[in-house]
Amino acid sequence: MTAYTATVTVRLKQGVLDPEAETTKQALERLGFELAELRSADRFEIDLDAESAEDAAQRAEEMAERLLANPTIHDYEVDVDER
Amino acid sequence: MTAYTATVTVRLKQGVLDPEAETTKQALERLGFELAELRSADRFEIDLDAESAEDAAQRAEEMAERLLANPTIHDYEVDVDER
Repeated sequence: MTAYTATVTVRLKQGVLDPEAETTKQALERLGFELAELRSADRFEIDLDAESAEDAAQRAEEMAERLLANPTIHDYEVDVDER
Repeated sequence: MTAYTATVTVRLKQGVLDPEAETTKQALERLGFELAELRSADRFEIDLDAESAEDAAQRAEEMAERLLANPTIHDYEVDVDER
């Protein structure tokens, strides 16, 4: 078994409204910053032991499907690194 | 001016309690997943126009310092890519 860190990034699908990101963008603009767009995402860093990087990625994808992301409104991506 | 995307990742400093991450970890364990640790972070993807990647990174760091992160409890990192 090898120690891996799987990073799951969960973001809203294109077209799903994100009022929190819009509020953050407006607050930055009020502070004088110029920006074209702001998107927010959740990032989960999961330490786990697995036989291989593929095994770790597959388990992290299952975690995303079952709990971390809502497939109706979210896309997610998984990256795996050895710890 | 070039179009860049600056990614700001904001995470709790080592030692700051993260009850949301702990709850998420326990929920995954109840679903039968085995994991050693789970950390959560916020990720902001900011599209902006800048003279250079260094300029874009500096502006994103200022946004993190002034609004996106709370320096008392958060660390942050900035990555910049051409869009």
